[in-house]
Amino acid sequence: MGINLPNFLTSKSKNKRMNEFQDLDHIDGVSISTLSANLYKDTRDDVVLFYFREGANFASVYTQSKIISENIKWNLNQKSKKIHSLLVNARNANCFTGKQGYKSLEKIAELLSQKLSERQLEDEEYPKKIKPKEIIFGCTGTIGETFPEDKIKNKIPELIDKIKYTQNKYIWMKAALGIMTTDTQPKMAMEICNIGSSEIKIFGVAKGSGMIQPNMATTLAYIFTDADLPNDLLKKILKKNITTTFHAITCDGDTSTNDMVSIFSTGKAKHSKITNINDEKIKDFDLALNKVLLNLAKRVVADGEGASKFISINVENCKNEDDAKKIAFSIANSPLVKTAIAGEDPNWGRIVMAIGKSGVILNIEKLSIRFGDILIVQNGKINPNYNEAEASSYMKGDNIEINVGVFSGSKKFSAYTMDLTNKYIEINSDYRS
Amino acid sequence: MGINLPNFLTSKSKNKRMNEFQDLDHIDGVSISTLSANLYKDTRDDVVLFYFREGANFASVYTQSKIISENIKWNLNQKSKKIHSLLVNARNANCFTGKQGYKSLEKIAELLSQKLSERQLEDEEYPKKIKPKEIIFGCTGTIGETFPEDKIKNKIPELIDKIKYTQNKYIWMKAALGIMTTDTQPKMAMEICNIGSSEIKIFGVAKGSGMIQPNMATTLAYIFTDADLPNDLLKKILKKNITTTFHAITCDGDTSTNDMVSIFSTGKAKHSKITNINDEKIKDFDLALNKVLLNLAKRVVADGEGASKFISINVENCKNEDDAKKIAFSIANSPLVKTAIAGEDPNWGRIVMAIGKSGVILNIEKLSIRFGDILIVQNGKINPNYNEAEASSYMKGDNIEINVGVFSGSKKFSAYTMDLTNKYIEINSDYRS
Repeated sequence: MGINLPNFLTSKSKNKRMNEFQDLDHIDGVSISTLSANLYKDTRDDVVLFYFREGANFASVYTQSKIISENIKWNLNQKSKKIHSLLVNARNANCFTGKQGYKSLEKIAELLSQKLSERQLEDEEYPKKIKPKEIIFGCTGTIGETFPEDKIKNKIPELIDKIKYTQNKYIWMKAALGIMTTDTQPKMAMEICNIGSSEIKIFGVAKGSGMIQPNMATTLAYIFTDADLPNDLLKKILKKNITTTFHAITCDGDTSTNDMVSIFSTGKAKHSKITNINDEKIKDFDLALNKVLLNLAKRVVADGEGASKFISINVENCKNEDDAKKIAFSIANSPLVKTAIAGEDPNWGRIVMAIGKSGVILNIEKLSIRFGDILIVQNGKINPNYNEAEASSYMKGDNIEINVGVFSGSKKFSAYTMDLTNKYIEINSDYRS
Repeated sequence: MGINLPNFLTSKSKNKRMNEFQDLDHIDGVSISTLSANLYKDTRDDVVLFYFREGANFASVYTQSKIISENIKWNLNQKSKKIHSLLVNARNANCFTGKQGYKSLEKIAELLSQKLSERQLEDEEYPKKIKPKEIIFGCTGTIGETFPEDKIKNKIPELIDKIKYTQNKYIWMKAALGIMTTDTQPKMAMEICNIGSSEIKIFGVAKGSGMIQPNMATTLAYIFTDADLPNDLLKKILKKNITTTFHAITCDGDTSTNDMVSIFSTGKAKHSKITNINDEKIKDFDLALNKVLLNLAKRVVADGEGASKFISINVENCKNEDDAKKIAFSIANSPLVKTAIAGEDPNWGRIVMAIGKSGVILNIEKLSIRFGDILIVQNGKINPNYNEAEASSYMKGDNIEINVGVFSGSKKFSAYTMDLTNKYIEINSDYRS
């Protein structure tokens, strides 16, 4: 959409190679292969295979929708300790496809595990038979259309042939592009951190909530690390960091049936064993994981449909985090706030309205509201020095910060969203064709 | 907005005079007076006085927002059994005006009660001194601007001079116009019903959620009846009927600080005493009140900003009404559903998404979805006879019905909204000027 990505990648990072175009390179234990299975009319990569030669520990967080896609049902049914492959397709969400959709995944998993086993059994270093239940799926695209089982199955031999054990920035870019639906930019992020004295990589790719033709938003994010962490710890650390990252973004308040964020840990970097999330040695990893997730989540919002401005909403000094979150999302999901920002109007009255409708009980006489550093409301009154011309000029930027102080406690929450533009309506009211 | 009002006014009504342009006439005990206090740049009526010569019993339901305007604070503080006047102004919402806003109301109430008393004490039939606490206020317009106390006070003598004891359709139209902000049409409704053998009138005027320049939506609805009902019964019957009418509509999910629905009962129609909401004799009044409220509520939605289509969402066969309501509002507030309808796209996938994100646990294998009478999903599967061309043709109408069957019980809820168009964005992103 031509929006300039805000400066997500702060100088505080330890990763010196980091910049706005992060180049992901090799990560031990992960192989990627992508191709076109002709799921789209135009030829483009639409199937991406992530392959873990020696298996990977893993954890996932799925959509909060009560209607879930068939691939998420499949994933929830697999109880393997290690995963050998994640297969992602675009164009078809495999949702509302019923038994056909689920059976297709069974058959694809069967064929993929058989073909991977053929390769792996010849592997002198790691001969192993791979089982269907060691494969999970990500799907995104239209719902309610027959899942293209044959098109995908036909390409499995070629997908496997293309596997290389050494990855580079080109293949990561291909993976990020291959999982896109209506995103306008691929989304990648990385951090390097330490567990004890070992250097650990955390790479991630994501796709966003491009909810255009034909049907629906889906957020997918896949994180890969060479750390050696057990599944239950991965689950805890992923859930903890999702709260302030992927669960802190909103485009239009709509929720997909297919959302999926997963972390895979190949265990190829050797470090002392960690089993407890409170272990001091995991702190740096924890922070780095948060950065990767936040970086990807912000990229999803910045590339939201029709977005012309990136909006951060910081709600501070609340009695509890839940209150801060309710206020932040009430502002972030308000069409009136989002249209005002699209119109570059410092319409603080709408912020007041959104705070009021959040349902949080607060003392209005303590309330403060700032756009960036511009103080508008203080102690529940308009700042007598407020200069609307200054605020109007601030609103012309690409990167808008709304800061709300509640002054009833010490808890805070930040939510991220984009403005609501004519372009959003155009995109979403276009007849599917 | 050019939208044709759907045929709200069904032939089932007992009121033979009813049509799409209902003419409200005289109702005993209510006087109306309107004028321009120059609150707008252009001269238009912006202050409306409703005067109850002999007082009226009353009840109100206010906004659910946690930030409320000064006039609502004032109204909540008045504990009079009877009200003598409701003064409504447009242009300034008297919200976020702090002590100045509240004190202005005190002073206006003081002057208005004094001037009304002067008139009333000369009244041979009903000499009475009117107290400030027998006056309540409705305000709508910008928030955060100084309340125009003097402009309003200056006009009070003229407002009172203009009071006539016999009302006609012209003065009701003036009242409906005088309380408007960015509504494009005045909103009036009436029903005639019986309590016992007495004929009872129920009249209503409303303004809608035109959330354009400068700031904010406010729904105001005022109902007047010549029935003789006590305050606690009015409160119960208003609350009961609000649930399926004004609390069943949504334009964009945003909530004003000033919303106010009130009922005033002048007691001029004589009938047997009623104290209990379950009394058989109040049934007809109950139904008629629901019709008036629903009629006004639907008019508010149909005149919602940028509306090109009126949408009814009927969710049936739920375990409880709360589930039905959650699903109905999840659909009604989904920008993806509302943009699809603006684009005349029978995009049922988005209905599925919105049902899923409602949080209601349901058996997807029982789910049915219809647009009007067109069956799309039955028993959780696409209807094999579904013809998208037929559905596309249906979507071209002004009046769209989405019918969802959950089949887990017998409860239902209907919500009403309009589509989300480019016009909405244009209106709301225009810089305030």
